[in-house]
This record gives sequence, structure tokens and C-alpha cells, in this order.
Amino acid sequence: MEFMQEALKQAKKAYKKDEVPIGAVIVKNDKMIAKAYNKREHSSATYHAEILAINKACKKLKDFRLIGCDIYVTLEPCAMCMGAILNARLEHLYFGAYAKSDAKGNILSSEEINERAGLNHKTVITGGILQNECTLLITDYFKQKRINNKL
Amino acid sequence: MEFMQEALKQAKKAYKKDEVPIGAVIVKNDKMIAKAYNKREHSSATYHAEILAINKACKKLKDFRLIGCDIYVTLEPCAMCMGAILNARLEHLYFGAYAKSDAKGNILSSEEINERAGLNHKTVITGGILQNECTLLITDYFKQKRINNKL
Repeated sequence: MEFMQEALKQAKKAYKKDEVPIGAVIVKNDKMIAKAYNKREHSSATYHAEILAINKACKKLKDFRLIGCDIYVTLEPCAMCMGAILNARLEHLYFGAYAKSDAKGNILSSEEINERAGLNHKTVITGGILQNECTLLITDYFKQKRINNKL
Repeated sequence: MEFMQEALKQAKKAYKKDEVPIGAVIVKNDKMIAKAYNKREHSSATYHAEILAINKACKKLKDFRLIGCDIYVTLEPCAMCMGAILNARLEHLYFGAYAKSDAKGNILSSEEINERAGLNHKTVITGGILQNECTLLITDYFKQKRINNKL
């Protein structure tokens, strides 16, 4: 829970900067080695929390393979970020809120990308960590956005 | 062809730095606005040519949405990069070599990610531009790698 709490703190930093509140933390041997929050609106389409955390961790370990590292993210990763998690060889993905999906399976889940990205490496995935807090933060952000847009 | 030629030039720069030779170029109104090559080994798991080109283009246009922009890449994008292309709202993806796939469809193609990433935006995809040159450069790189590893 401790690491997802830190990811939530990161997400709240994004919220304050009017970015979709998503945070990520990378952990090795029970120590946080990188943390980041979503900066898409103010920089680049690729600056999601996971990508920024992976960049920091790779820099720290001087390796593009983050062997023995786990990532905690407040929201189930998008296709780009799930691909990045696999490219970085992250061992375990813990996420909070579940991303939108549909009953017919028309939207790729992180689990399906994990299975079918074409890499030998697979990541263990556990969803729903502090799910309520993570989900509430995001729904609250979009609710506020709608209210502000009507003002 | 001109833009894929430039992407190939970028890929050759990666080759010289002992990186898998992949290059990317982003074009708006028939003008190149960003170019980049794969830097994964020397920096981060996310530093593929496409991600770096998208970051440069977003910085240049001061927008995470690359409306009216096309991307030229020497190799069919991985899941991370295809996700990034969609997140950046790129209009048209032109790629050179086809990525590995299998007959059973067990590996996600850029086309399938395009259809199922869960975004309203879709990218038009055209593969096989300067396919021979793009494919040869990559196979030559891995051939040389195997020879060097045996020395």
C-alpha cells in the first residue's frame, strides 16, 4: 500500500497542475528509485507518469532493462505505457483504478498487451490496489473540469 | 519517398552508435518538423525513434496533439510506439519494414492497436515504404552483431 500511496501523492501533483491525475513509482528491493506524474498537457503526448518514471529509473540504473523492478501506477496503463513497461522488462505492474473497457473486449487491456506484445518478457499484473482512492481522484478531476467549463 | 529516405538516414546514425537502426521523421504541410533515431541502449527503454520524434514535434508545436502531422518510421512500430502515435493524434503512419508476426495473429500489429487502443482517434497506416532498404539495414545490423559476438 505504501508505494501506491506515494503514486497517489504524485497523481495529486498532476491534479494541481491541471493534468489528468496519474502518478507512478518504480521500486527495487523495497526502495523507491523513481517517481513521476503525468505531464502530457504541458509537454508531450508521451509524457505519461509511467514513461517519465521509466526514464528516471533507466537513468539511475544506467540500464534500459529494469530487472528486478516493479511499477506502481494509479491507473491501468494505456497501450503506450503498457508497451513501455514491457520494453523496460519491469517485473510486476501494480495498478489502482481500472481503465475503461467494454463487454465485447474491443479495447485492449494491459493483460492482453502483456500476452501479445511480441516480447519474450511478460510482466505480472495486479490491478485494483487502493482502487477507490485512485478512481475517485480521476473522476473528481473530470467532474471539476466539466464544472469549470460551464462557468 | 523523400521522407522515408530521411528516416533511413536517421536509422543509419543509430547503427553507427550500435543501436538497432530505426529512424523516424514527423512531417507537417510537407515540411519535416522533427527527426530522431533509436537511442534505447544508451539511455532509456522508452527512447525509441518514434517517441523521441514525437517529443520534439510536441515541443516545436507547443501542443501534445500533433494535428495534421504524419510520421515516417523505418520499422513497423512496437506496442509502445503505436500507442504513442495514437496518443499524439498523428494523422498518417508510414512505415518501411514489417515487424515480426506469426500466422496465428498472436502478436499485436500496429493495425490492431490502432483499432483497439480505446481512443476515438485512428491513424491511417501504410506499410512497406522503401521496404527492402529498411529491412536490409536491420537484418544487416543483427548479422554483424552475431559475427562480432563470435569474434
